[in-house]
Amino acid sequence: MISFRKAHRSDLPAIIDLLADDMLGQSREVVSDPVDPRYEQAFAAIEADGNQLMAVAVDGEGKVLGCLQLSFIPGLSRTGMWRGQIESVRIAASQRGTGLGSRFIEWAVEKAAERGCQLVQLTSDKARPDAIRFYEKLGFIASHEGLKRSL
Amino acid sequence: MISFRKAHRSDLPAIIDLLADDMLGQSREVVSDPVDPRYEQAFAAIEADGNQLMAVAVDGEGKVLGCLQLSFIPGLSRTGMWRGQIESVRIAASQRGTGLGSRFIEWAVEKAAERGCQLVQLTSDKARPDAIRFYEKLGFIASHEGLKRSL
Repeated sequence: MISFRKAHRSDLPAIIDLLADDMLGQSREVVSDPVDPRYEQAFAAIEADGNQLMAVAVDGEGKVLGCLQLSFIPGLSRTGMWRGQIESVRIAASQRGTGLGSRFIEWAVEKAAERGCQLVQLTSDKARPDAIRFYEKLGFIASHEGLKRSL
Repeated sequence: MISFRKAHRSDLPAIIDLLADDMLGQSREVVSDPVDPRYEQAFAAIEADGNQLMAVAVDGEGKVLGCLQLSFIPGLSRTGMWRGQIESVRIAASQRGTGLGSRFIEWAVEKAAERGCQLVQLTSDKARPDAIRFYEKLGFIASHEGLKRSL
Protein backbone atom coordinates (compact mmCIF):
# COMPACT_ATOMS: atom_id res chain seq x y z
CA MET A 1 0.00 0.00 0.00
CA ILE A 2 1.68 3.18 -1.19
CA SER A 3 0.95 6.58 0.32
CA PHE A 4 2.12 10.13 -0.28
CA ARG A 5 3.12 12.57 2.44
CA LYS A 6 5.28 15.55 3.35
CA ALA A 7 8.93 14.54 3.66
CA HIS A 8 10.57 14.45 7.08
CA ARG A 9 14.22 15.17 7.81
CA SER A 10 14.74 11.43 8.28
CA ASP A 11 13.75 10.83 4.63
CA LEU A 12 16.64 12.95 3.38
CA PRO A 13 19.18 10.15 2.73
CA ALA A 14 16.59 8.19 0.73
CA ILE A 15 15.64 11.30 -1.26
CA ILE A 16 19.29 11.98 -2.12
CA ASP A 17 19.64 8.35 -3.26
CA LEU A 18 16.68 8.86 -5.60
CA LEU A 19 18.05 12.13 -6.97
CA ALA A 20 21.40 10.46 -7.66
CA ASP A 21 19.92 7.32 -9.26
CA ASP A 22 19.19 9.09 -12.50
CA MET A 23 20.75 9.61 -15.93
CA LEU A 24 21.30 13.33 -15.34
CA GLY A 25 21.45 13.27 -11.54
CA GLN A 26 24.34 10.85 -11.11
CA SER A 27 26.91 13.50 -12.01
CA ARG A 28 25.12 16.28 -10.12
CA GLU A 29 24.53 14.77 -6.68
CA VAL A 30 26.74 13.70 -3.77
CA VAL A 31 25.77 10.51 -1.93
CA SER A 32 27.46 10.22 1.46
CA ASP A 33 26.80 9.14 5.04
CA PRO A 34 26.20 11.44 6.83
CA VAL A 35 24.54 13.45 4.09
CA ASP A 36 26.40 16.44 2.66
CA PRO A 37 25.58 19.52 4.79
CA ARG A 38 24.41 21.40 1.69
CA TYR A 39 21.42 19.03 1.49
CA GLU A 40 20.70 19.63 5.20
CA GLN A 41 20.71 23.37 4.61
CA ALA A 42 18.48 23.05 1.57
CA PHE A 43 16.02 20.83 3.42
CA ALA A 44 15.87 23.37 6.25
CA ALA A 45 15.22 26.18 3.72
CA ILE A 46 12.36 24.18 2.17
CA GLU A 47 10.91 23.47 5.62
CA ALA A 48 11.12 27.16 6.55
CA ASP A 49 9.17 28.27 3.47
CA GLY A 50 5.42 27.75 3.83
CA ASN A 51 5.08 27.84 0.05
CA GLN A 52 7.29 24.76 -0.46
CA LEU A 53 6.24 21.13 -0.01
CA MET A 54 8.83 18.38 -0.31
CA ALA A 55 6.90 15.14 -0.65
CA VAL A 56 7.67 11.43 -0.72
CA ALA A 57 5.88 8.28 -1.84
CA VAL A 58 6.31 5.48 0.72
CA ASP A 59 5.31 1.83 0.85
CA GLY A 60 3.61 0.08 3.76
CA GLU A 61 6.94 -0.37 5.54
CA GLY A 62 7.88 3.28 5.18
CA LYS A 63 10.40 2.73 2.38
CA VAL A 64 10.75 5.85 0.21
CA LEU A 65 9.90 5.00 -3.43
CA GLY A 66 9.61 8.46 -4.91
CA CYS A 67 10.00 12.15 -4.26
CA LEU A 68 8.93 15.46 -5.69
CA GLN A 69 8.91 19.11 -4.68
CA LEU A 70 5.82 21.26 -5.06
CA SER A 71 6.13 25.04 -4.90
CA PHE A 72 3.10 27.31 -4.46
CA ILE A 73 3.88 30.55 -6.28
CA PRO A 74 1.75 33.68 -5.91
CA GLY A 75 1.67 35.98 -8.93
CA LEU A 76 -0.11 38.95 -10.43
CA SER A 77 -0.61 37.61 -13.98
CA ARG A 78 -4.00 36.20 -14.97
CA THR A 79 -5.84 38.23 -12.28
CA GLY A 80 -3.56 37.19 -9.49
CA MET A 81 -3.35 33.49 -10.18
CA TRP A 82 -1.39 31.11 -7.94
CA ARG A 83 0.71 28.47 -9.70
CA GLY A 84 1.77 25.09 -8.47
CA GLN A 85 5.21 24.12 -9.70
CA ILE A 86 6.56 20.58 -9.61
CA GLU A 87 10.31 19.96 -9.49
CA SER A 88 12.75 17.12 -8.78
CA VAL A 89 10.37 14.26 -9.54
CA ARG A 90 12.05 10.89 -9.07
CA ILE A 91 10.59 7.39 -8.90
CA ALA A 92 12.65 4.40 -7.71
CA ALA A 93 13.86 2.28 -10.63
CA SER A 94 11.95 -0.72 -9.22
CA GLN A 95 8.66 1.21 -9.43
CA ARG A 96 8.85 2.65 -12.93
CA GLY A 97 5.98 1.60 -15.16
CA THR A 98 3.74 0.70 -12.22
CA GLY A 99 1.59 3.82 -12.35
CA LEU A 100 3.12 5.17 -9.15
CA GLY A 101 4.48 8.24 -10.93
CA SER A 102 1.06 9.14 -12.36
CA ARG A 103 -0.63 8.75 -9.00
CA PHE A 104 2.06 10.84 -7.30
CA ILE A 105 1.69 13.65 -9.84
CA GLU A 106 -2.11 13.56 -9.50
CA TRP A 107 -1.67 13.79 -5.72
CA ALA A 108 0.54 16.86 -6.20
CA VAL A 109 -1.98 18.43 -8.58
CA GLU A 110 -4.67 17.95 -5.91
CA LYS A 111 -2.48 19.62 -3.30
CA ALA A 112 -1.99 22.55 -5.68
CA ALA A 113 -5.75 22.79 -6.27
CA GLU A 114 -6.41 22.71 -2.50
CA ARG A 115 -4.12 25.73 -2.17
CA GLY A 116 -6.05 27.61 -4.86
CA CYS A 117 -3.65 27.15 -7.76
CA GLN A 118 -5.29 27.39 -11.17
CA LEU A 119 -2.28 26.13 -13.08
CA VAL A 120 0.36 23.48 -12.44
CA GLN A 121 3.64 23.78 -14.29
CA LEU A 122 6.95 22.03 -14.58
CA THR A 123 9.87 21.82 -16.95
CA SER A 124 11.33 18.60 -18.25
CA ASP A 125 14.74 18.23 -19.86
CA LYS A 126 14.46 17.64 -23.63
CA ALA A 127 16.97 14.83 -23.03
CA ARG A 128 14.14 12.96 -21.26
CA PRO A 129 11.60 12.28 -24.05
CA ASP A 130 9.91 9.53 -22.01
CA ALA A 131 9.32 11.97 -19.16
CA ILE A 132 7.82 14.52 -21.53
CA ARG A 133 5.42 11.92 -22.98
CA PHE A 134 4.53 10.89 -19.43
CA TYR A 135 3.50 14.45 -18.52
CA GLU A 136 1.63 14.93 -21.79
CA LYS A 137 -0.43 11.81 -21.03
CA LEU A 138 -1.33 13.44 -17.71
CA GLY A 139 -2.75 16.48 -19.49
CA PHE A 140 0.27 18.77 -19.43
CA ILE A 141 0.80 20.79 -22.61
CA ALA A 142 4.30 21.61 -23.84
CA SER A 143 3.28 25.16 -24.76
CA HIS A 144 6.44 26.82 -23.46
CA GLU A 145 10.18 26.70 -23.89
CA GLY A 146 11.96 26.07 -20.60
CA LEU A 147 15.03 28.32 -20.59
CA LYS A 148 17.85 28.03 -18.05
CA ARG A 149 21.00 30.02 -17.41
CA SER A 150 23.68 28.78 -15.05
CA LEU A 151 25.35 31.39 -12.84
CA MET B 1 17.58 57.69 -16.09
CA ILE B 2 15.98 54.31 -15.57
CA SER B 3 16.27 52.37 -12.34
CA PHE B 4 15.04 49.04 -11.04
CA ARG B 5 13.49 48.47 -7.62
CA LYS B 6 11.07 46.39 -5.58
CA ALA B 7 7.48 47.22 -6.48
CA HIS B 8 5.30 49.12 -4.01
CA ARG B 9 1.56 48.75 -3.60
CA SER B 10 1.16 52.09 -5.38
CA ASP B 11 2.75 50.59 -8.53
CA LEU B 12 0.00 48.00 -8.83
CA PRO B 13 -2.27 49.83 -11.34
CA ALA B 14 0.72 50.48 -13.63
CA ILE B 15 1.82 46.84 -13.38
CA ILE B 16 -1.67 45.61 -14.29
CA ASP B 17 -1.65 47.98 -17.30
CA LEU B 18 1.62 46.40 -18.45
CA LEU B 19 0.33 42.85 -17.96
CA ALA B 20 -2.78 43.68 -20.00
CA ASP B 21 -0.92 45.49 -22.81
CA ASP B 22 0.25 42.26 -24.36
CA MET B 23 -0.76 39.85 -27.12
CA LEU B 24 -1.57 37.06 -24.66
CA GLY B 25 -2.34 39.22 -21.62
CA GLN B 26 -5.13 41.30 -23.07
CA SER B 27 -7.66 38.49 -22.73
CA ARG B 28 -6.34 37.32 -19.35
CA GLU B 29 -6.24 40.52 -17.31
CA VAL B 30 -8.85 42.91 -15.89
CA VAL B 31 -8.01 46.62 -16.01
CA SER B 32 -10.21 48.67 -13.66
CA ASP B 33 -10.09 51.61 -11.24
CA PRO B 34 -9.90 50.72 -8.42
CA VAL B 35 -7.93 47.59 -9.26
CA ASP B 36 -9.68 44.23 -9.06
CA PRO B 37 -9.37 42.89 -5.47
CA ARG B 38 -7.81 39.67 -6.77
CA TYR B 39 -4.71 41.66 -7.76
CA GLU B 40 -4.63 43.28 -4.30
CA GLN B 41 -4.73 39.84 -2.69
CA ALA B 42 -2.03 38.51 -4.99
CA PHE B 43 0.21 41.52 -4.32
CA ALA B 44 -0.23 40.98 -0.57
CA ALA B 45 0.68 37.28 -0.97
CA ILE B 46 3.84 38.22 -2.88
CA GLU B 47 4.77 40.80 -0.22
CA ALA B 48 4.21 38.26 2.55
CA ASP B 49 6.59 35.72 0.97
CA GLY B 50 10.24 36.54 1.57
CA ASN B 51 11.19 34.37 -1.41
CA GLN B 52 9.25 36.53 -3.89
CA LEU B 53 10.39 39.83 -5.36
CA MET B 54 8.02 41.82 -7.57
CA ALA B 55 10.13 44.43 -9.33
CA VAL B 56 9.58 47.44 -11.56
CA ALA B 57 11.68 49.51 -13.94
CA VAL B 58 10.98 53.23 -13.48
CA ASP B 59 12.12 56.38 -15.26
CA GLY B 60 13.43 59.53 -13.58
CA GLU B 61 9.88 60.73 -12.91
CA GLY B 62 8.84 57.46 -11.33
CA LYS B 63 6.81 56.24 -14.32
CA VAL B 64 6.67 52.42 -14.42
CA LEU B 65 8.14 51.15 -17.72
CA GLY B 66 8.49 47.46 -16.96
CA CYS B 67 7.82 44.75 -14.43
CA LEU B 68 8.93 41.26 -13.58
CA GLN B 69 8.61 38.80 -10.73
CA LEU B 70 11.60 36.96 -9.35
CA SER B 71 11.10 33.88 -7.16
CA PHE B 72 13.90 32.39 -5.05
CA ILE B 73 13.26 28.65 -4.87
CA PRO B 74 15.15 26.37 -2.47
CA GLY B 75 15.60 22.79 -3.65
CA LEU B 76 17.45 19.56 -2.94
CA SER B 77 18.57 18.74 -6.51
CA ARG B 78 22.15 19.52 -7.55
CA THR B 79 23.43 19.41 -3.93
CA GLY B 80 20.78 21.73 -2.59
CA MET B 81 20.87 24.41 -5.25
CA TRP B 82 18.70 27.53 -5.07
CA ARG B 83 17.05 28.63 -8.29
CA GLY B 84 15.96 32.09 -9.34
CA GLN B 85 12.83 32.02 -11.45
CA ILE B 86 11.65 34.93 -13.55
CA GLU B 87 7.97 35.34 -14.40
CA SER B 88 5.60 37.97 -15.79
CA VAL B 89 8.20 40.04 -17.62
CA ARG B 90 6.66 43.03 -19.38
CA ILE B 91 8.24 46.09 -20.97
CA ALA B 92 6.16 49.13 -21.98
CA ALA B 93 5.55 49.19 -25.74
CA SER B 94 7.34 52.57 -25.95
CA GLN B 95 10.53 51.02 -24.52
CA ARG B 96 10.83 47.87 -26.60
CA GLY B 97 14.06 47.63 -28.55
CA THR B 98 15.85 50.13 -26.29
CA GLY B 99 17.83 47.55 -24.30
CA LEU B 100 15.73 48.15 -21.19
CA GLY B 101 14.54 44.56 -21.16
CA SER B 102 18.08 43.18 -21.27
CA ARG B 103 19.23 45.46 -18.47
CA PHE B 104 16.20 44.54 -16.36
CA ILE B 105 16.83 40.79 -16.80
CA GLU B 106 20.53 41.25 -15.96
CA TRP B 107 19.47 43.15 -12.83
CA ALA B 108 17.20 40.23 -11.87
CA VAL B 109 20.01 37.72 -12.54
CA GLU B 110 22.26 39.75 -10.19
CA LYS B 111 19.60 39.70 -7.49
CA ALA B 112 19.34 35.93 -7.87
CA ALA B 113 23.14 35.58 -7.61
CA GLU B 114 23.17 37.78 -4.47
CA ARG B 115 20.72 35.34 -2.89
CA GLY B 116 22.98 32.38 -3.73
CA CYS B 117 21.09 31.03 -6.74
CA GLN B 118 23.25 29.03 -9.14
CA LEU B 119 20.65 28.84 -11.88
CA VAL B 120 18.08 31.27 -13.25
CA GLN B 121 15.13 29.82 -15.12
CA LEU B 122 12.00 30.96 -16.86
CA THR B 123 9.52 29.67 -19.38
CA SER B 124 8.45 31.54 -22.47
CA ASP B 125 5.37 30.78 -24.55
CA LYS B 126 6.28 29.18 -27.89
CA ALA B 127 3.85 31.73 -29.38
CA ARG B 128 6.45 34.40 -28.52
CA PRO B 129 9.43 33.53 -30.76
CA ASP B 130 10.90 37.04 -30.35
CA ALA B 131 10.91 36.62 -26.58
CA ILE B 132 12.64 33.25 -26.84
CA ARG B 133 15.36 34.73 -29.07
CA PHE B 134 15.71 37.63 -26.62
CA TYR B 135 16.42 35.23 -23.73
CA GLU B 136 18.77 33.09 -25.83
CA LYS B 137 20.83 36.22 -26.60
CA LEU B 138 21.09 36.75 -22.84
CA GLY B 139 22.62 33.31 -22.38
CA PHE B 140 19.53 31.29 -21.55
CA ILE B 141 19.43 27.82 -23.11
CA ALA B 142 16.12 26.27 -24.22
CA SER B 143 17.12 22.87 -22.84
CA HIS B 144 13.70 22.06 -21.36
CA GLU B 145 10.10 21.74 -22.38
CA GLY B 146 7.82 24.01 -20.35
CA LEU B 147 4.71 21.99 -19.57
CA LYS B 148 1.52 23.50 -18.11
CA ARG B 149 -1.78 22.05 -17.00
CA SER B 150 -4.75 24.28 -16.19
CA LEU B 151 -6.88 23.26 -13.21
